[in-house]
Amino acid sequence: MSSYADRLAALREQLKADRLDGFVVPLTDEHMSEYVGSYAQRLEWLTGFKGSAGSAAVLPQEAAIFTDGRYTIQVRQQVSEREWSYQSVPETSVAQWLGENAPQGARIGYDPWLHTAEWVRVATEQLAAKGAELVAVGTNPIDKVWSDRPEPSRARLIVQPDDLAGKSSAAKRHDIADWLEREGADAAVLAALDSIAWTLNVRGADVSHTPVALAFAVAHKDGTADLFVAGEKVGDDVRAHLGNGVRLHDRHAFEDYLRTLEGKTVVVDPERSVAAIGQALEEGGARILKRRDPTVLPRAIKNDAEVAGHKAAQARDGAAVARFLKWVDDEAPNNALDEMIAADKLEQLRREHGDLRDLSFDTISAFGPNGALPHYKGTAESNLKFAPGTLYLVDSGGQYQDGTTDITRTVPIGEPTAEMRDRFTRVLQGHIAIATALFPKGTRGSQLDSFARRPLWDAGCDYAHGTGHGVGAFLSVHEGPQRISPVGSSQSGGDEPLQAGMILSNEPGYYKAGEYGIRIENLVLVVECHVVGAEKEMLGFETLTFAPIDRRLIVAEMLSQRERTWLDAYHADVLRILGPQLEGEDRAWLDRECAPLGA
Amino acid sequence: MSSYADRLAALREQLKADRLDGFVVPLTDEHMSEYVGSYAQRLEWLTGFKGSAGSAAVLPQEAAIFTDGRYTIQVRQQVSEREWSYQSVPETSVAQWLGENAPQGARIGYDPWLHTAEWVRVATEQLAAKGAELVAVGTNPIDKVWSDRPEPSRARLIVQPDDLAGKSSAAKRHDIADWLEREGADAAVLAALDSIAWTLNVRGADVSHTPVALAFAVAHKDGTADLFVAGEKVGDDVRAHLGNGVRLHDRHAFEDYLRTLEGKTVVVDPERSVAAIGQALEEGGARILKRRDPTVLPRAIKNDAEVAGHKAAQARDGAAVARFLKWVDDEAPNNALDEMIAADKLEQLRREHGDLRDLSFDTISAFGPNGALPHYKGTAESNLKFAPGTLYLVDSGGQYQDGTTDITRTVPIGEPTAEMRDRFTRVLQGHIAIATALFPKGTRGSQLDSFARRPLWDAGCDYAHGTGHGVGAFLSVHEGPQRISPVGSSQSGGDEPLQAGMILSNEPGYYKAGEYGIRIENLVLVVECHVVGAEKEMLGFETLTFAPIDRRLIVAEMLSQRERTWLDAYHADVLRILGPQLEGEDRAWLDRECAPLGA
Repeated sequence: MSSYADRLAALREQLKADRLDGFVVPLTDEHMSEYVGSYAQRLEWLTGFKGSAGSAAVLPQEAAIFTDGRYTIQVRQQVSEREWSYQSVPETSVAQWLGENAPQGARIGYDPWLHTAEWVRVATEQLAAKGAELVAVGTNPIDKVWSDRPEPSRARLIVQPDDLAGKSSAAKRHDIADWLEREGADAAVLAALDSIAWTLNVRGADVSHTPVALAFAVAHKDGTADLFVAGEKVGDDVRAHLGNGVRLHDRHAFEDYLRTLEGKTVVVDPERSVAAIGQALEEGGARILKRRDPTVLPRAIKNDAEVAGHKAAQARDGAAVARFLKWVDDEAPNNALDEMIAADKLEQLRREHGDLRDLSFDTISAFGPNGALPHYKGTAESNLKFAPGTLYLVDSGGQYQDGTTDITRTVPIGEPTAEMRDRFTRVLQGHIAIATALFPKGTRGSQLDSFARRPLWDAGCDYAHGTGHGVGAFLSVHEGPQRISPVGSSQSGGDEPLQAGMILSNEPGYYKAGEYGIRIENLVLVVECHVVGAEKEMLGFETLTFAPIDRRLIVAEMLSQRERTWLDAYHADVLRILGPQLEGEDRAWLDRECAPLGA
Repeated sequence: MSSYADRLAALREQLKADRLDGFVVPLTDEHMSEYVGSYAQRLEWLTGFKGSAGSAAVLPQEAAIFTDGRYTIQVRQQVSEREWSYQSVPETSVAQWLGENAPQGARIGYDPWLHTAEWVRVATEQLAAKGAELVAVGTNPIDKVWSDRPEPSRARLIVQPDDLAGKSSAAKRHDIADWLEREGADAAVLAALDSIAWTLNVRGADVSHTPVALAFAVAHKDGTADLFVAGEKVGDDVRAHLGNGVRLHDRHAFEDYLRTLEGKTVVVDPERSVAAIGQALEEGGARILKRRDPTVLPRAIKNDAEVAGHKAAQARDGAAVARFLKWVDDEAPNNALDEMIAADKLEQLRREHGDLRDLSFDTISAFGPNGALPHYKGTAESNLKFAPGTLYLVDSGGQYQDGTTDITRTVPIGEPTAEMRDRFTRVLQGHIAIATALFPKGTRGSQLDSFARRPLWDAGCDYAHGTGHGVGAFLSVHEGPQRISPVGSSQSGGDEPLQAGMILSNEPGYYKAGEYGIRIENLVLVVECHVVGAEKEMLGFETLTFAPIDRRLIVAEMLSQRERTWLDAYHADVLRILGPQLEGEDRAWLDRECAPLGA
């Protein structure tokens, strides 16, 4: 295996051969995915950076890696300072850095399959102002020098049955067709992998933790669709499921197909499509209509079958989490646990059910100071052994065919300090403030976010992440367009008004650098609420996630009567839903953990 | 006086003479002011509409008036449906309506001194898409046919002394010069009237309720300024105050002056400058740098002298309000009051102090159902007599040389219903939630807005306006860039992070259409708060407004201990600050009104 220095040198040689003075390396794929397959991990191959967001820029003499505040420490540990300078976004953008460091008249390459058209527009402008030029490449120069680059996954597609999807693919395509009619368009490009999976009621295994298949699709106003996917991945069952309404093509035929749409009006989502798609459509003579992908909102609003599936998955998942928490209680005093042992145990307990398809993300199994890193990703080097006197934070989730889960619990290892209990209680108060919120239709998640922070603000504390993200139905664990987050924050997703059927996380936290972290996360469902005498149509949340919240960390006197009532009722629900799934000592443990607060 | 039908006909004749097929009539002046002088009330002259926001569009056959949701009823009462069609913004924009109704190839006139460049850009584009053209006029055609158009006010400028302004004009101009240096600019156009008044420490009386003078100014990087104002308005005292650093010109010389700035880099605020300013600069060969007016943020952050002045003004104003509330209590049972009598009495009590310069806006004196209109402006026709069994809402304020006030109180007339008391208590809880909020530096008002709504949301209610607006220091009663309002709402002002020294209103409400309205409004000052153990620099609010909150409308059992503590402490402050200003029965009344809630 070549060194990172060798790889950078090889890329620079290749750029010279391609007559380029620089190149931009983002961390995404042809679908603007959040998580990408190993074949698309070009940033990690080139630099060694293992974080989930970042980009790099390479010039003949300089090279820079761009990360946000979450990765300030990690990037310095993983990426050599001899070859790379560390840059922070959003303070310094890639185009800005290139403009300042590229020689006059430089030709800077970019892969049009890895950037949005808007990025290309802005970067072109910024570079032009500095006398440099942005140039689309035909083949990504990294791919030419990455000799052992993994092949794209060959995982086969699977059918998501109608009884779990709650609506047939034909009916979904009919809805898209109606929408296209209203918009005066002929077709819509579906470039986001979860849009394709949702529309066609299929799933895949090409991206870790997200059950999607690498594909493109185009939906038409006659209710049919064209699907571009590697033929070897499509079995007879999927072919039969897709039926005559979906024409199959090889994935590589997509670009040429776009060029055949002359005279058609084609919807392209500027946030969810790479620049190459728009370029091919324009070159082919199609008219582009910029609209949000028409599947985004219906996908976010779960139907009855999806809600029922979610509830079943949460109940199953909660039982595994409860067994795990009991196991931690039992094992921690023996001083033999560490973060990786714990994470493996939790995964094993989830797998014992037999229904687990995948974890929904890499488990955050964070002891003590590692818990203070909200996006901690454990490695053999960072792995901490458990020892008494601090907290253990575990954020994890499963992909089940009927639903996607995401839950965080924080438990004391040994005796917690008064400060830990105070902070935990405030985080719990914030969590309850979201769980119990009533709000009029039309309210956006940004209007609720501060409810979760106020108890921490009262103590002069806060947390540097959003309060909630949308969650898919056996799809992405991070799904827009709704979220609970201040406007303008970097949390993914939009600020769509909340609607009944949307699922979000409710996850306030508190992080004391170098000491410990606290987060309490449940998923919640937006539901219609009937308030006596109400003048507005009101919405609220139904909590979907069930597992005990550790009462050893709660200062009962800090809670209002309403907060105590919520907690006791929640634990009664936990017992009702998880109790029948547990036996013996597990069940006895759950009984104790779910007792009312005063008891 | 001509009829409105005659006026519209005269305008159409004039448009024909000017070779125009249509014309756009906004409600603003050359400074994008919220309140405008009578000379600029072209919309009212043409249509009869007396609201504070709206616009009109005239075509040869059709004419339309555009108002927002606040004026849906009022516009139908004041503007004849024979000549005008009613259009709602933002659903239908003026340009959109013109595009749909103007004949192909139409030339639509606009006055470049009454629209921003951005409006011109968007409207030009929208009209072009429909085959019509937007044309700047030299002289406003309304001014040619408005024979008895008032002259602009001749009110003289007055000096705002340094001890009230807290900073000399020279020092403020020096700060602007430093900023221009940093931005690489030579000069900044100050087009907003309050920007000019603040920068030069002068006030005027050209616009009702806002103590500003009609003028333009340009500030330079050498710390000097050019002021364009009618010479007759500037007395020797003001000349001496302005000194050598400020060159005086006639207001009409401004446009020609802009054309002399060839080669200079000139800052123009696109939101606060009309299109004609940018056009003149461009024609003259200046380079335009679009930036926010550099006085906006320092003006919003009050210095110590301004804060002290505000407090003195609030104390003085609160005593007048207290006397008024006592008078209402005494007089209401006699069934002789009406809204206008009450408003006059309140103004008289404010004037008795001798320091009142003006009201800060038209008093909203709203009885019963009129209180349900948040922006109610009383007229002889709408004037209601007081009768028992409902609520009286009074929203009013004064302009004093040391500060601008804005206060709303709601009191029962006769016996309030249980519903009125429930709703009033919820509004009070929302008010207290804002008054007691602690939040980290960097927090925006939009993040606090929902705190004020939650008690109402819990009952399925809400209010359709923002929670708070910025307030000037002997300047505009509505001042940006801070506010407490959901993002994207129509409330004026921006969503600037709150900073110590900013003054805002705290005014949640509740409105039951056809029955009554409730609003409790105090002004609050953003202050630094020292929280024991805080990890963040924290801010909070200090309430500046003092007058009793009617305890007859409070359901004490609904309040938490923390809310009761706030209310009792607030009333203790009211008594401490207003008590020494009141005597005899007024003082005895205040003592009773300020007793603790349980007493």
